[in-house]
Amino acid sequence: MRVLIIGAGILGSSAAYHLAAQGIEVEIVDEAHQGKATMAGAGIVCPWATKVEEPEWYKLYEAGTRFYDGLISGLKARGETDLGYGKVGALVVAEDRAEFDAAAERVARRTKNAPEAGEIRHLTPAEARALFPPLREDFDAIHIPGAARVDARLLSAAMVRAAVSMGAKFRSDYVTLKTDGDRARCLDSTGKEIAADQIIVTAGAWASQILRPLGLDHPVVPQKGQIVHLRLPGVATAKWPVVLPMSSHYMLAFDDSRVVIGATRENNSGFDYRVTAAGELEVLSAGLKIAPGLANATLIETRIGFRPAGETMNPILGRVPGFSNLTLGNGLGAGGLTIGPFAGSQIAKIAIGQTTDIPLDLYAPKAS
Amino acid sequence: MRVLIIGAGILGSSAAYHLAAQGIEVEIVDEAHQGKATMAGAGIVCPWATKVEEPEWYKLYEAGTRFYDGLISGLKARGETDLGYGKVGALVVAEDRAEFDAAAERVARRTKNAPEAGEIRHLTPAEARALFPPLREDFDAIHIPGAARVDARLLSAAMVRAAVSMGAKFRSDYVTLKTDGDRARCLDSTGKEIAADQIIVTAGAWASQILRPLGLDHPVVPQKGQIVHLRLPGVATAKWPVVLPMSSHYMLAFDDSRVVIGATRENNSGFDYRVTAAGELEVLSAGLKIAPGLANATLIETRIGFRPAGETMNPILGRVPGFSNLTLGNGLGAGGLTIGPFAGSQIAKIAIGQTTDIPLDLYAPKAS
Amino acid sequence: MRVLIIGAGILGSSAAYHLAAQGIEVEIVDEAHQGKATMAGAGIVCPWATKVEEPEWYKLYEAGTRFYDGLISGLKARGETDLGYGKVGALVVAEDRAEFDAAAERVARRTKNAPEAGEIRHLTPAEARALFPPLREDFDAIHIPGAARVDARLLSAAMVRAAVSMGAKFRSDYVTLKTDGDRARCLDSTGKEIAADQIIVTAGAWASQILRPLGLDHPVVPQKGQIVHLRLPGVATAKWPVVLPMSSHYMLAFDDSRVVIGATRENNSGFDYRVTAAGELEVLSAGLKIAPGLANATLIETRIGFRPAGETMNPILGRVPGFSNLTLGNGLGAGGLTIGPFAGSQIAKIAIGQTTDIPLDLYAPKAS
Amino acid sequence: MRVLIIGAGILGSSAAYHLAAQGIEVEIVDEAHQGKATMAGAGIVCPWATKVEEPEWYKLYEAGTRFYDGLISGLKARGETDLGYGKVGALVVAEDRAEFDAAAERVARRTKNAPEAGEIRHLTPAEARALFPPLREDFDAIHIPGAARVDARLLSAAMVRAAVSMGAKFRSDYVTLKTDGDRARCLDSTGKEIAADQIIVTAGAWASQILRPLGLDHPVVPQKGQIVHLRLPGVATAKWPVVLPMSSHYMLAFDDSRVVIGATRENNSGFDYRVTAAGELEVLSAGLKIAPGLANATLIETRIGFRPAGETMNPILGRVPGFSNLTLGNGLGAGGLTIGPFAGSQIAKIAIGQTTDIPLDLYAPKAS
Repeated sequence: MRVLIIGAGILGSSAAYHLAAQGIEVEIVDEAHQGKATMAGAGIVCPWATKVEEPEWYKLYEAGTRFYDGLISGLKARGETDLGYGKVGALVVAEDRAEFDAAAERVARRTKNAPEAGEIRHLTPAEARALFPPLREDFDAIHIPGAARVDARLLSAAMVRAAVSMGAKFRSDYVTLKTDGDRARCLDSTGKEIAADQIIVTAGAWASQILRPLGLDHPVVPQKGQIVHLRLPGVATAKWPVVLPMSSHYMLAFDDSRVVIGATRENNSGFDYRVTAAGELEVLSAGLKIAPGLANATLIETRIGFRPAGETMNPILGRVPGFSNLTLGNGLGAGGLTIGPFAGSQIAKIAIGQTTDIPLDLYAPKAS
Repeated sequence: MRVLIIGAGILGSSAAYHLAAQGIEVEIVDEAHQGKATMAGAGIVCPWATKVEEPEWYKLYEAGTRFYDGLISGLKARGETDLGYGKVGALVVAEDRAEFDAAAERVARRTKNAPEAGEIRHLTPAEARALFPPLREDFDAIHIPGAARVDARLLSAAMVRAAVSMGAKFRSDYVTLKTDGDRARCLDSTGKEIAADQIIVTAGAWASQILRPLGLDHPVVPQKGQIVHLRLPGVATAKWPVVLPMSSHYMLAFDDSRVVIGATRENNSGFDYRVTAAGELEVLSAGLKIAPGLANATLIETRIGFRPAGETMNPILGRVPGFSNLTLGNGLGAGGLTIGPFAGSQIAKIAIGQTTDIPLDLYAPKAS
Repeated sequence: MRVLIIGAGILGSSAAYHLAAQGIEVEIVDEAHQGKATMAGAGIVCPWATKVEEPEWYKLYEAGTRFYDGLISGLKARGETDLGYGKVGALVVAEDRAEFDAAAERVARRTKNAPEAGEIRHLTPAEARALFPPLREDFDAIHIPGAARVDARLLSAAMVRAAVSMGAKFRSDYVTLKTDGDRARCLDSTGKEIAADQIIVTAGAWASQILRPLGLDHPVVPQKGQIVHLRLPGVATAKWPVVLPMSSHYMLAFDDSRVVIGATRENNSGFDYRVTAAGELEVLSAGLKIAPGLANATLIETRIGFRPAGETMNPILGRVPGFSNLTLGNGLGAGGLTIGPFAGSQIAKIAIGQTTDIPLDLYAPKAS
Repeated sequence: MRVLIIGAGILGSSAAYHLAAQGIEVEIVDEAHQGKATMAGAGIVCPWATKVEEPEWYKLYEAGTRFYDGLISGLKARGETDLGYGKVGALVVAEDRAEFDAAAERVARRTKNAPEAGEIRHLTPAEARALFPPLREDFDAIHIPGAARVDARLLSAAMVRAAVSMGAKFRSDYVTLKTDGDRARCLDSTGKEIAADQIIVTAGAWASQILRPLGLDHPVVPQKGQIVHLRLPGVATAKWPVVLPMSSHYMLAFDDSRVVIGATRENNSGFDYRVTAAGELEVLSAGLKIAPGLANATLIETRIGFRPAGETMNPILGRVPGFSNLTLGNGLGAGGLTIGPFAGSQIAKIAIGQTTDIPLDLYAPKAS
């Protein structure tokens, strides 16, 4: 059995890692272009605070969260050190008191049976600032110790590296698919076929173009995000919690004195790779309002990512009707880094004919 | 009449400019990804020295050269200043004496009826170094005053700018095509159709993926080039000639104290966007051997481009059989910057039903 | 006579160019560090609108303006093309009506005897937007056709290049000075003396450290500026006027579809090379308020410059008391690009014992 | 007691960390310019193979090596994770058999009483390639398991971060010193004094300019190094050993699929911040000759560093004669990353009047 994976984002790299770990022959092909959601992604693993109330989707969100501990310890056991993952906790804050109370209620309700969330506490502004010093002086906060943050770029690279060390092949190229009876066949950019028994397409926002030659209308479009990276020279930020202000923006920190403010959600920009004046202004304004202590931070870069957004909250995970060798993973949207590693492991199972850990029929691709 | 152009490289931007100048409504869609041949391209406009002996193709090569004067003066008349074009002449050199003599013979023969090449002279090493000071001390040279160099990135941007100032639209996006009877239809990345009476695809090495959904097997593959840019701080290089050492490498200079050494020709790398250790070593070795005076130059960047290479030397220019609204331009290979602006103007004519300036039937796309 | 110039900013490069043009032997030593005012500088040559009312200083400001025409034509005559200079005019605008009227009065008064300013007109908002399309819809404007903008990085490089082509030497190094009787001596970073009959120090905000070993307390400190560069893809901006909103911010455009918004004026940041969250936010907010049409522009970079600010508006230009071979140019502050080329030509004259074009005694360095 | 440290390279950051850990009030001032030796430095901690035979200096070299274990565990205990340090072992190789045998003898002799070097083994080419796969196929190697590599940029940042978390202050600025009786006083770039009881100058290759105003002729000059960084996408390099080919070049790997080839040793370039054509060519040629398997690696960047080189191998560590409050650390040259952390801890002791761990009188600064 030889599995070809098209796209080395969080889904594809997780699928590759889990297949390689089972001894399956894997080849990963990835176009090293800019703008991948995974590569820009500063992810938050914290299902408990979201305003979204969709029970089925929430199951997946929780499963994704629970999956992380095993993934991280597995990668560490294989010698990977640079994972970008930290269980640093989260602070839920809100400008509006009613919104804060509603968030407190949601968190309490959802964590009741989720011991992995840790002990939820209501912090005073001083306690909150002790954990995240740049925070506004008048914000109290709900503290969720079990939340984590992840640098998707590092985590994906680590999963690919681990896959390669177990025998997977990796190459940078641009591929096309064509139909051959009930099979999809994959050609590299020089027109040569890449041999594969099964093909997994995890091409994120770019999948439409790859799937079009198969006659598939893939209902995923790019949602552009602009994400600002700041540095606080000399400041130890590795343990700072994620800040969730119950708006579309958020903040989190990484080990290297870096704080990230995310993100615009631009639905009609198409694949526009540019940092824009208005996007940068929006994110910086939102960030400095919540955390005025970041005013003097160094602006190091603004990353652009295109989240693959489906028509509903639901991802697309499963075999493509009409093809005997084609599995898709896509449409994780803003939840990509929470759900991604788990979902990647599941489509790996689907591709090689194993049963998934939880039922995923709801997410099966539709016939075009 | 509304023409949609997919790809804003040298071909697409020329087509857009020439259509807009005729008052035609134009929309240009371009994915701002890395690695475009045009964007990396440091071009040489000098048909007279090439070793290739293909009479039909040579006609196109010459027509492309003759086209430049009018193009440049037209753009200047529209207020464009930053064109990256300079008629700086060329020095033909060779390590091997027999190769040098053969080149001298070719140049003499081909320029006999080409007054635009200027007066061909055989220069002593001292005369050659007076024109291009870093040159090896023992190289004599054939001087062709009518040769030019062009920074394709600047020239394309100027043609797009001129088109936009005459009403053309420009956007950065990733599109897909689908078949609708005898017409191609174009969808943007959000799945919305982009209205167009005629579609011109000038997507270079990426065209296969765009054309695959139409059932077309487009015989163009990427040929990777790594191109080194050096700077000589304080040195006025604007008038330095192109150096053609009769190998696959070459050298040319730009206004801003910059000297460019090109390029690897990698046929089986696919879309591999990376500067490689061996590629950089190859180009620097070749360059310093020919021009040891560049040893202390600043290495400012190495650009990657993917030349769209067809199965033969011949480009693909014309209407696609079986479609009433689809025109292609592609496959210019290493001759892209010589032929490109002319060829772009011709496919513009083809798309709107005008007669081309010279017969181009030879280059018409084949039926798949 | 051999003149050593320390610092290749706008002052030093102008001095070098004017000395080399007289056949004087010149060596320029420059540390290629970041943050030079000249290198970040997007300059405006428009003395007529400033709120500053200092008659003596204004004479210098005017002389600097008048100097440009000859400088530019001289450089062009020497084959330099990439000068970054454009006489594009200026639009004076103001949010406050009283401020606008006061500016109109100042401009009228000052341009009465300044035919080089061109015909001053009061434009309607529509007329103003015809010249600078992103401008706010309700701003009328005073139009000063004779104003110019200059990319200091390009202009300095062109003057250095022209100097080098006339025989000047240029090197990148870090030097120190020491006293030897009534002479200053200059050592390079390896401790070797650089021979010179006369030394000109044009080291901008860095001069204090260079002059300290001579026992000089040089009264110039860095004023940090953060300057945002935007791009409007496909838009021909080469002829857009400078926008002067009568605040500390301003806007101007360059040939390559680029618009620049300047700048913070940070007096107590010392040499802090960082783009900061608050600085970027300040400049983008100010810019988009005046020109909301820039919202979708690409943010390409933010440059940092340290303007050399003296204790008063007055620059420091002249021989250092107590030394027979030391001339200074410094302290031009925010007027550096207006005054710089002229002032550089004048300190060149002072260094070789010629009479200046206007009396400059007022600006002579004080004894420490 | 308040100690001011000028320069946050490996020496200054170590001094700051060790002072802060003792509860001493510390301020670190650092100009964030390019080219610092520490910032470019890819360091090797392996005293046993060097050709240099200088018994006194070797003691320091060994002490520096032994110091690392405690330093690393101390930083980890304080929560620092991103240290760039790995005890990955070293492979000594040589093109010339006699050279190889001499190296084998040296290593055997020096490690006899150095259990920290681990068990020295002679590896076959296949064994050597198992540890460092890109290595030439015919190289056998001496394996020294106790050797380590360090990313000086990360280690310095971690020590500064740890110091700041214990109360140290950090700022980016450019300072000058002046004499006041038997004391040095430090002014920031705005001319304000920075209060300090003791001043430590660890300004590396830049120290001459800082010390000149005190009348000190500091015998340290910059030795330029160009260092190439490659990436092997998908390859787990974290455990690859250092390769020491007994020439001035070397190779080592970091966690993120990165391999570093160092470095030129340019003694007369002064502060020339440029990557040069010849420098890049030299390093790539040397690297690919030793490790041809790197041919297809990605070239990600070339870093420039200026090693502070004294007149002898000996560093300068100690109090400056004639001053009651001035301590220097400098001149570590190519051994900076081996000796630096230890030496930093020792000049910290000297500055506050403590006894050093080993006698360092030999390295005391001379009177000027």
